[in-house]
Amino acid sequence: MIYFDNAATSFPKPDVVYDSIMKAMKEYGANPGRSGHKLALRIGREIFETRELLAKLFNVGNPMNIIFTSNCTESLNLGIKGVLKRGDHVITTSMEHNSVLRPISVLKSQGVEVTIIEGDSMGRIDPSKIKKNIKENTKLIINTHVSNLTGTIMPVKLIGKIAKDNGIYYLVDAAQSAGVYDIDVDEMNIDILAFPGHKGLLGPQGTGGLYIRDGLNIREMKQGGTGSVSHLLEQPEMFPDRYESGTHNGPGIVGLGEGVRYIFKEGIGNIRKYEEELTKHFVEEVLKIDNVKVYGPLDVEERGAVVPINIGNEDSSEISYILDSKYDIEVRPGLHCAPMAHKTIGTFEQGVVRFSFGPFNTHKEIEFAVKAIKEISREI
Amino acid sequence: MIYFDNAATSFPKPDVVYDSIMKAMKEYGANPGRSGHKLALRIGREIFETRELLAKLFNVGNPMNIIFTSNCTESLNLGIKGVLKRGDHVITTSMEHNSVLRPISVLKSQGVEVTIIEGDSMGRIDPSKIKKNIKENTKLIINTHVSNLTGTIMPVKLIGKIAKDNGIYYLVDAAQSAGVYDIDVDEMNIDILAFPGHKGLLGPQGTGGLYIRDGLNIREMKQGGTGSVSHLLEQPEMFPDRYESGTHNGPGIVGLGEGVRYIFKEGIGNIRKYEEELTKHFVEEVLKIDNVKVYGPLDVEERGAVVPINIGNEDSSEISYILDSKYDIEVRPGLHCAPMAHKTIGTFEQGVVRFSFGPFNTHKEIEFAVKAIKEISREI
Repeated sequence: MIYFDNAATSFPKPDVVYDSIMKAMKEYGANPGRSGHKLALRIGREIFETRELLAKLFNVGNPMNIIFTSNCTESLNLGIKGVLKRGDHVITTSMEHNSVLRPISVLKSQGVEVTIIEGDSMGRIDPSKIKKNIKENTKLIINTHVSNLTGTIMPVKLIGKIAKDNGIYYLVDAAQSAGVYDIDVDEMNIDILAFPGHKGLLGPQGTGGLYIRDGLNIREMKQGGTGSVSHLLEQPEMFPDRYESGTHNGPGIVGLGEGVRYIFKEGIGNIRKYEEELTKHFVEEVLKIDNVKVYGPLDVEERGAVVPINIGNEDSSEISYILDSKYDIEVRPGLHCAPMAHKTIGTFEQGVVRFSFGPFNTHKEIEFAVKAIKEISREI
Repeated sequence: MIYFDNAATSFPKPDVVYDSIMKAMKEYGANPGRSGHKLALRIGREIFETRELLAKLFNVGNPMNIIFTSNCTESLNLGIKGVLKRGDHVITTSMEHNSVLRPISVLKSQGVEVTIIEGDSMGRIDPSKIKKNIKENTKLIINTHVSNLTGTIMPVKLIGKIAKDNGIYYLVDAAQSAGVYDIDVDEMNIDILAFPGHKGLLGPQGTGGLYIRDGLNIREMKQGGTGSVSHLLEQPEMFPDRYESGTHNGPGIVGLGEGVRYIFKEGIGNIRKYEEELTKHFVEEVLKIDNVKVYGPLDVEERGAVVPINIGNEDSSEISYILDSKYDIEVRPGLHCAPMAHKTIGTFEQGVVRFSFGPFNTHKEIEFAVKAIKEISREI
């Protein structure tokens, strides 16, 4: 089986990730921050270490500004709805995932003004268009770092500067970039960074996080037991407790920490370079096949390891079905929860067959897939 | 090491739970409901099976009415805030956890009327007091099934009847009961049932759920990608998609399903009976010790496997520290995120030392703990 669906969730994970989760579950599967006993302290310490590792990865000064969530969608909902209120204006782009567009759609119905900047046919966003659309009540700019459809790498640093120069908060959706692309919240002027734990960071499902810059008063989405100031009926104000009510996914967060450790060990630059090579290999070879269309930028300097293709006018689900059933190749067809991005690149009707690569894919797998696509394109 | 903190999180889990999680992560760790390939379908199927198992356990007709969340706190926030709006009246009790009281505290500040029924010194709630406090705008009654402080079993069926007779929604917090006490949402007239996956249900941390009765239009807390009707910017209305945006904790839910299978295999009645025996053993023995006070009902027919004690006027943290450091016994001191419940039973200042038992505890462990408490009570 060849797994090319890493943009949905990375698979497999490094063995050390599996091992650390099992160890946490079997040896110290207690409730962190709730009791003072050895087991509870140990899992609490391990969770703090994951916070430290993530802070280091994103150049965050204080690990307490890293909040754990259950996935990137929760992070985005928290970041977006925690900041915006009636009368505010938000600027986002047509390249966003539904995890950004759907919360914004709800806020729009509640009186938040929304401007959506259209990407070009390669999925690129022009920062000057964002700048032009800033108004007096613009409170937040949101965009993805790497498109989950076209793989397009967005000019985060340029947009961050525009946000900073205009006193606007900047939220980046790092769903496809965290763990593979360098993210420096200071250098990029990112105020809020949403990320999944189970994609590029190589942690397990059920993990995600949000960085919140100091001084930003984001409303929490949930209240409950935090194991802190338990005598009060009011949610504590302190980070990260304010945002982390209820029992953590302890073993999951331990596994996420191990994923980040693995990235540090291998080198994020080496992982990215390897994924770029796989992407380049795939793009170059499929472009040679008659009838195959590749979407997004062709240069790997401009794209992540996400490559959407189509074969003629064939339905993307049909192609994906053949790849799975005949060749044991796992890809994702359809709309990828990004309907406006599909409209932007003109694939809203047909969908695309999305190949997405991870650090455990090989050039041999790419060759096999290219051969399969050749055969399919001849047969249909 | 003796683990008596099962009310915080059950530990250990059955081996089959660990094994199923590892298998899911290593063999089919894909993203359910996002792609059509074999791995994605397999994890999707397994998640559906867990839904079916939970539906069977709680006598829910349609498994799609079981929503997965990341913990019981999230379930409670969703259930409470999804129903109540400005002008509504809610009745709850002083025995609730902060995961109920803190969301309600926020709603109160937003114009929801709140009545809190006081428990008696044993933590018992009198249903007639609930009935007396019903008003024209009463929309929701909320109470815990089993107190996380005193272990008191609440008269859920009686309260459910009052709710039904008065056309009021009934939300039960099953944090301490799910997987140990019989829950029948029909017979008990429960409209909304919040439960954790990682306590009595013996699943891993990072799992929880909410049952929502058909016809109840609960507002979702998060919007995002659901893998369904992806062409729309609006959140789908269908169950469970409306409430499950973003990537599931796939392996965690598989483990939860295995926990529920284990409960069916052992028999929920047998598990309960065993925990009752452990509780009875412990309560009877510690009551014989000079200077020890036991809180909550003494009869195991009236209490769950949660036993709070104090030794003289000694601070509960100090006793717990001695139990951990000298005897390797893990318990939880303090306020247990239930400040009003502590006020109700008069332990707000001192806290209590909470012993909570699970299916893997033994009578030998109870004997050892009793001996330790005897020694401590002599020494202080």
